[in-house]
Amino acid sequence: MAKELASRSEDYAQWYQDLVIKADLAEHSAVKGCMVIKPYGYSIWEKMQAALDKMFKDTGHSNAYFPLFIPKSFLELEEGHAEGFAKECAVVTHYRLKADPSRPGKLMVDPDSKLTDELIVRPTSETIIWNTYKGWIQSYRDLPLLINQWANVVRWEMRTRLFLRTTEFLWQEGHTAHATREEAIIETEKMLDVYADFAENWLAVPVIKGIKTANERFAGAVETYCIEALMQDGKALQAGTSHFLGQNFAKAFDVKFTSKEGKLDYVWATSWGVSTRLMGALIMSHSDDNGLVLPPKLAPIQVVIVPIFKTEEEHQAIIARAEELVKSFRAKGVSVKFDDRDTHRPGWKFAEYEMRGVPIRLGIGPKDLEKGAVELARRDTMEKNSVPFDGLEDRIVQLLDEIQQNLYTRALARRTDTAHHVTTWAEFEAALDKGGFVYAHWDGTSETEQRIKEKTKATIRCIPLHNPKEDGVCILSGKPSTQRVVFARAY
Amino acid sequence: MAKELASRSEDYAQWYQDLVIKADLAEHSAVKGCMVIKPYGYSIWEKMQAALDKMFKDTGHSNAYFPLFIPKSFLELEEGHAEGFAKECAVVTHYRLKADPSRPGKLMVDPDSKLTDELIVRPTSETIIWNTYKGWIQSYRDLPLLINQWANVVRWEMRTRLFLRTTEFLWQEGHTAHATREEAIIETEKMLDVYADFAENWLAVPVIKGIKTANERFAGAVETYCIEALMQDGKALQAGTSHFLGQNFAKAFDVKFTSKEGKLDYVWATSWGVSTRLMGALIMSHSDDNGLVLPPKLAPIQVVIVPIFKTEEEHQAIIARAEELVKSFRAKGVSVKFDDRDTHRPGWKFAEYEMRGVPIRLGIGPKDLEKGAVELARRDTMEKNSVPFDGLEDRIVQLLDEIQQNLYTRALARRTDTAHHVTTWAEFEAALDKGGFVYAHWDGTSETEQRIKEKTKATIRCIPLHNPKEDGVCILSGKPSTQRVVFARAY
Repeated sequence: MAKELASRSEDYAQWYQDLVIKADLAEHSAVKGCMVIKPYGYSIWEKMQAALDKMFKDTGHSNAYFPLFIPKSFLELEEGHAEGFAKECAVVTHYRLKADPSRPGKLMVDPDSKLTDELIVRPTSETIIWNTYKGWIQSYRDLPLLINQWANVVRWEMRTRLFLRTTEFLWQEGHTAHATREEAIIETEKMLDVYADFAENWLAVPVIKGIKTANERFAGAVETYCIEALMQDGKALQAGTSHFLGQNFAKAFDVKFTSKEGKLDYVWATSWGVSTRLMGALIMSHSDDNGLVLPPKLAPIQVVIVPIFKTEEEHQAIIARAEELVKSFRAKGVSVKFDDRDTHRPGWKFAEYEMRGVPIRLGIGPKDLEKGAVELARRDTMEKNSVPFDGLEDRIVQLLDEIQQNLYTRALARRTDTAHHVTTWAEFEAALDKGGFVYAHWDGTSETEQRIKEKTKATIRCIPLHNPKEDGVCILSGKPSTQRVVFARAY
Repeated sequence: MAKELASRSEDYAQWYQDLVIKADLAEHSAVKGCMVIKPYGYSIWEKMQAALDKMFKDTGHSNAYFPLFIPKSFLELEEGHAEGFAKECAVVTHYRLKADPSRPGKLMVDPDSKLTDELIVRPTSETIIWNTYKGWIQSYRDLPLLINQWANVVRWEMRTRLFLRTTEFLWQEGHTAHATREEAIIETEKMLDVYADFAENWLAVPVIKGIKTANERFAGAVETYCIEALMQDGKALQAGTSHFLGQNFAKAFDVKFTSKEGKLDYVWATSWGVSTRLMGALIMSHSDDNGLVLPPKLAPIQVVIVPIFKTEEEHQAIIARAEELVKSFRAKGVSVKFDDRDTHRPGWKFAEYEMRGVPIRLGIGPKDLEKGAVELARRDTMEKNSVPFDGLEDRIVQLLDEIQQNLYTRALARRTDTAHHVTTWAEFEAALDKGGFVYAHWDGTSETEQRIKEKTKATIRCIPLHNPKEDGVCILSGKPSTQRVVFARAY
C-alpha cells in the first residue's frame, strides 16, 4: 500500500491528498467543494470533539443550538462582517420544488415559493446569535453568557482541499457576552489558551500564540488572537482563532444591559472557533511517506495485534494469547484491536495499519510464543523490537505516552530548526523559500504588509503574545520597528 | 413561577408552549420555523445523543458525515422520494451576495452567481449517501456497511411547534447497506428495537412497535417500522422510524455488488432516524402544571440542594453539610448542584427547579441540621419527606431508580387506561374524542384509511408487530378484516 502514496519530497500536495484518501479519512463528494468524512476520519474528529467539549465545559461554557439560516438583512447590520462574508455565501431563495412541465420526471424550483428576505446558510453565527442574545440579556445578572455551538457552516470556496478548505465544514463556535471590556479580553485569551493546550497536548502540535494584524483580522472583530502551527513542508497553518469583538455586534443588534450601578451600556463580546481543519493540521504535522501517524490520545485504535501463523494449532495458541493481551490492555484503558481476519495476509495488514497511523502494532507468531514475547512496532519511529509478555500492558501504557511526547518534541524541533531571524530583504526571501517561520521587522503598516504579500505570497502569521521588544528596521520599507513579527507562506 | 403556565386541562397546546419557554428549553428564532435550543434544553438533548450513540456503536455502527447539500438532480432519481420531499425543500440557487447599487449599505443576491444545478438543503440524506456508497461498495466483502450520521436537516414547514415540528431540526440518520433482503430486514427491526429500548428505558415512555400503512410510509421505503407513543392529552406521537428501503435507492444510484457466488446484484438498504422531536415526546409524557418532569437518566441535574437560613452562622453550617453531601453523591455517580446563590430566595429556587424538572430537591435548614436530616422533595409525585443524612447517598441512588421506573409505570398505566377496543363507527368516533389509542378493524385499503382521516382527523398509527389475528369487519366500510390496527389523532 505504501507505494501508492506520493512522497512528501516529491509532491507534498499530492502526498497529502493521497494520504487522506488511502487512510480512509475523507473524500470529495458529488457536491462541489463539500467533503464526505469517512468513518475512520470521523472517529478521529469525535475524539477531538470530546476532548474540546470537556475543556469548554470545564471552563464554564454550555452548548446550545442556533438556526442554520441567517436572514440576509441580519448580515447587513455589521458592516465589516458583511464585507467579509458576502462574497462566499450560499443563498436560499426558494422553499419548494415542483414538477417541471417541460421535462417529465424532472423537478424545477417553484417560482411561487420565492422568499422576500433571502436566507444565508450560516458562514459563522455572530449575527443570528446576537439577535437572539438581545432577548436574553437585560441586566448584569444575565452576564457573563458563556455559550458554545457545535455546527456545520458554509463558505463558498472556489479552490478546496480536503479538511483544509472546504465549502461546508464542521466546527465549534463559542459566543460569549460580558459586562466589561476587560472581562471579554480575559475570556478571549483564556479560550486561546484552551486551543493552545489542546493543540500541544492532544494533537502534539506546537503552536505560537499571537495576535493577527488588521489585514488578517476576523470580519467584525476588534482583535483576533490565533494559534499558528508549522507543517512539515515549512508552511504555516492557522489552527484556531479567538476574537475580541468589542461592542460591535451588541451595537449592530442593540444588546444593552443594566450594570450593577444602574447604568445602561452595550454588552462586550467574544467568539472563538476551531474546525475540521484541525484534521489537516494533525495529518500534516506527523505523517510520513508510509501514511498517517497519529498521536495516541487521538488514535481510535491505539494498539493493533496481528497474528502470524501457518497451522491451525499455531493459530489457536496465538488467539488464546491475544485475547489475554486484549483484556489486560483494555483494563488499562488502552483501545486495542485484534485483527484476526482470514481475508488478508499479515503483510497486507501491516501496511494497512501503517497507512492508518495506529501507534503500536504487535505481531505474534509461533516463535514469539515460544520466547514469551511479541514483536512490537512503533509507528512514529518505525522501530521494531521483541518485547516480553511479562508486564507488556504497563510497557504499552508508558510507550503510548512516549509516542505522544515524541511526536510533539519532533514537531517542536522541526519548528525550531527551521526558524529564521532575518534582517535584510534578501535574507527574508531566501528564508521564505526554505520554509519555516521567519521572524522579521515590519513597520506596522497594512500597506507594507500588503506589498510583502504581493511580492512573496507570505503573510504575517501573527504578532506573538508577550513579544520581546527589539529595535530594528522594516525588511521592506526600512522604517523603524520595535518588534519582530512572524512571517510565513500559509495554508 | 408555576402560575405562569397555562394548565393542561385548560389549554394543552398553550401549556406545552409555555413550558418549553419557561423551563428554558427552546424558543422561536428570528428565522421563520427555526428554533433556538437553549443550553438547558440542549443539555437534555446531549444526554439523549450520548445514550443513543452508545447503543448504535454497541450494535456495530460507525458515525460519518455527508454533505448538507443535495443536488436537485439527485432528488429526481428516486421518484417516490422526490414526490415526498419536493414540496418542502429549502433551495440554494446562488452562492454570492454583492452590494446593492440602489440601496446604500444593503446587500443583494449576485445574479452572476446562479447555480446551474440548484442545491437542496438535505431534508434527509438517502440520495447523497447512496450516491457516495456507489464508490464504496463493489463486493460482498464491503457489506454490511453500517453507518450513522448526526446532522441538521431542513423541511420547510408552514405550521411549526417547538421541538415537535420545526423547519430545521437535529437528528441522527442511520443508512445501512446489505447483501440480502433478509439481512436488511433484520437490521430494520433491530434498530426499531434499539429505539423502543431507548424510549422505554431512558425517556420512560412506553411505545407500540409497529408497521406503517402504505399511506404513512416514508417516501422511498418498501416498509416503514415505527414506535408510537401516547401523550397526556390522548394524542399519539411518532417517536422514531426505521425503514426497509429494499433496492430502491441502490437502483436509483446504480449500486451493485458481487456476491460470494460471483453474481452481480443491487444492494439492500435500510435507514432509520430519531430527532429533537423526542424532546417533545419527553416533555408531553411526564410534565405537569408545575413544569417539566424529567426521568433521572436524562436529567442534567438529578439532585439540587437548596440552603434555607437566617444567620450567617446557620449558612456556614449548611454549607459544610451540603459540601459533604455533594461529594458523597458525586462518588455514587449522581449529578448534583448546590444552589447557594444569594440573589434568589429559597421559595423562588424551589419553583425554578420544579419548572426545570429536577427529579430530587433537598432543602436544608437549621432544624434539619439539628435533626440530622434533610427535607427531600420528589418532583414526580411532589411528595416531601424528612430523610436522615445517614445513608442518604444510597437512598438517593435508589430513589432515582424508583422515579425513573415510576414515570414509566405511570405513562404505561395512562396508555392502558385510555385504550379503546371499538366495533362500531359510533364507538370509534366517541373513543377518538376521549383520546388514547383506538384498536379497530380496518379493511386494509388506502381509500378507507383516507376517508377515515378526512372524517375524523385520525390516522392509523401502526399495525402492531406480532398483532393477534382476529376476524371482524371494518368500522367504516363493513368489509371483512383479520386484525385490529391502532388509530389515534396525532402530532
